Amino acid sequence: MRELADRYHGTVLVVGGEGEKCRQVALSYGFRDVITPGDIIKANQHVAPFRKLTDEEYRNSRDLLAEGYRSLQDVVVEAVFVFADSRDWASDLQIILDVAMSKGGRLETRSETFDEGPPIYFSHSDVVWSAAHEHVRLGMGALRRIVEVVFEEVTGGKKLETHAFGKPQIGTFEFATRLLQQWRAAQHGLPDSRPPRTVYFVGDTPESDVRGTNAMDARSENTWYSILVKTGVYQEGTVPAYRPRKIVPTVLDAVKFGIEREVARRRAGGSAPNAKLLPLDGMSKDVLNDGAQNRVPSVQVHGDHD
Amino acid sequence: MRELADRYHGTVLVVGGEGEKCRQVALSYGFRDVITPGDIIKANQHVAPFRKLTDEEYRNSRDLLAEGYRSLQDVVVEAVFVFADSRDWASDLQIILDVAMSKGGRLETRSETFDEGPPIYFSHSDVVWSAAHEHVRLGMGALRRIVEVVFEEVTGGKKLETHAFGKPQIGTFEFATRLLQQWRAAQHGLPDSRPPRTVYFVGDTPESDVRGTNAMDARSENTWYSILVKTGVYQEGTVPAYRPRKIVPTVLDAVKFGIEREVARRRAGGSAPNAKLLPLDGMSKDVLNDGAQNRVPSVQVHGDHD
Repeated sequence: MRELADRYHGTVLVVGGEGEKCRQVALSYGFRDVITPGDIIKANQHVAPFRKLTDEEYRNSRDLLAEGYRSLQDVVVEAVFVFADSRDWASDLQIILDVAMSKGGRLETRSETFDEGPPIYFSHSDVVWSAAHEHVRLGMGALRRIVEVVFEEVTGGKKLETHAFGKPQIGTFEFATRLLQQWRAAQHGLPDSRPPRTVYFVGDTPESDVRGTNAMDARSENTWYSILVKTGVYQEGTVPAYRPRKIVPTVLDAVKFGIEREVARRRAGGSAPNAKLLPLDGMSKDVLNDGAQNRVPSVQVHGDHD
Repeated sequence: MRELADRYHGTVLVVGGEGEKCRQVALSYGFRDVITPGDIIKANQHVAPFRKLTDEEYRNSRDLLAEGYRSLQDVVVEAVFVFADSRDWASDLQIILDVAMSKGGRLETRSETFDEGPPIYFSHSDVVWSAAHEHVRLGMGALRRIVEVVFEEVTGGKKLETHAFGKPQIGTFEFATRLLQQWRAAQHGLPDSRPPRTVYFVGDTPESDVRGTNAMDARSENTWYSILVKTGVYQEGTVPAYRPRKIVPTVLDAVKFGIEREVARRRAGGSAPNAKLLPLDGMSKDVLNDGAQNRVPSVQVHGDHD
């Protein structure tokens, strides 16, 4: 989403997360004018009849009408970003749909054709995620589906296509590639134009992690090697909807597997003459420690380069 | 829903409304063991990762584990009732789906076939309703659709059929008929076996009010006369999806129309010899006063009987 700050110079609506966190993140990405559902409810409490802002939410929310907007109809939303999990689905859904049905993003208006709302981006589209509960919990992907279905319902059959970042979208893997190249150059002085020969991609969700890695592998010159762990969404004994190259119990096992495979290839002479194993840095160690916890982060262990 | 208290003698899950209100209503209907989403979250906070009960909610919720249940798996839900608008869609949706996907209603279990959950009832199925905001707001019917769509999504395509009371379901109009007959007998001493010759049904929503009234009219010996008002969901200038017999500005206009039509028929000799106009009682007056407010109640003005 960071890369979209250059595209939208006006007002963007940012949804999700705890308190003011997502507004701050959006501003740090370079978005210039960031409003939240709380700002809209503060200006018109009737937007969400069953939502009452807490005192703290009310205080932290922007007072749009005091800032010079004569009415909410003066506010034009250029894009909607769902940055993090919504904390109030009913009011966030209502506000996203209001904007989607508006005349060109202008708040409190209604399009006659329902096809002129601004683009809506979700930071990922996993329908469920693995949390502390025994069974997976609904996540942002479910809300995304809900936005699309209810839009169709209330507009008498019009379609709404929202956008999602994150896995399995290829753009996410390309973004990771760019980050990885920058990191290899900055941290290890490796030429940043040369990609790692093998990227080990570890994840717990076949539909996003494995699917995206396999798709990236199919279109890349280098190898994207999918590893599925059993500590998250994927349940042992079931057949994953997308087949990983390897299934291991935990993230730590996945990292060990990647290292051992690289060492073995090196011994077998499969590596280029100047290949070297990179030392783990602090971030990597943190990731390995996280592997012991319940929510499994997806990490890339990248092997040597040619 | 009152009439279902005879069918479900065990534990029922009641969803929606402010605080403890819906539990109390369910108990007053005769349901014997009523649990709420708050009770489940109190027993296992991981059910809804982003929902925190307020101190008051925590205090008011039942402590199922202290009442003798060894674990939530000992609780078997016989039916789910969405009595009133949910105040927290994410956690209520999660809990309804958990029960729908369970082995026969047993909490915290998962069916292998996803076809053995208990029945789920919604007290109505209007997708939108007319509140203080200029544009209609999402209502319980939207949540019902969401429950069905997300169930399909997370079960890999299984269908969930929920039940809805309320308009346009014929059962609702039949229930209203029974209430009306009781009221005519108790209040005015009219023989309760004889239905009113004409029932004027006033509503703001073509898809529920007008649709149901016209369907009831088609199958009844007496006349169900649909009147649509312009103060709610229906917007002037649009073509209603279901055609009412009459469109008037407000509820008060609808009542006047019904009275005048009855008086005219009486003068023209269309009434039975013993027909009389019933005086308005307190309840009717309250309804007329409500007509001035934004949320339009649906009222029946019943004419004379044969």
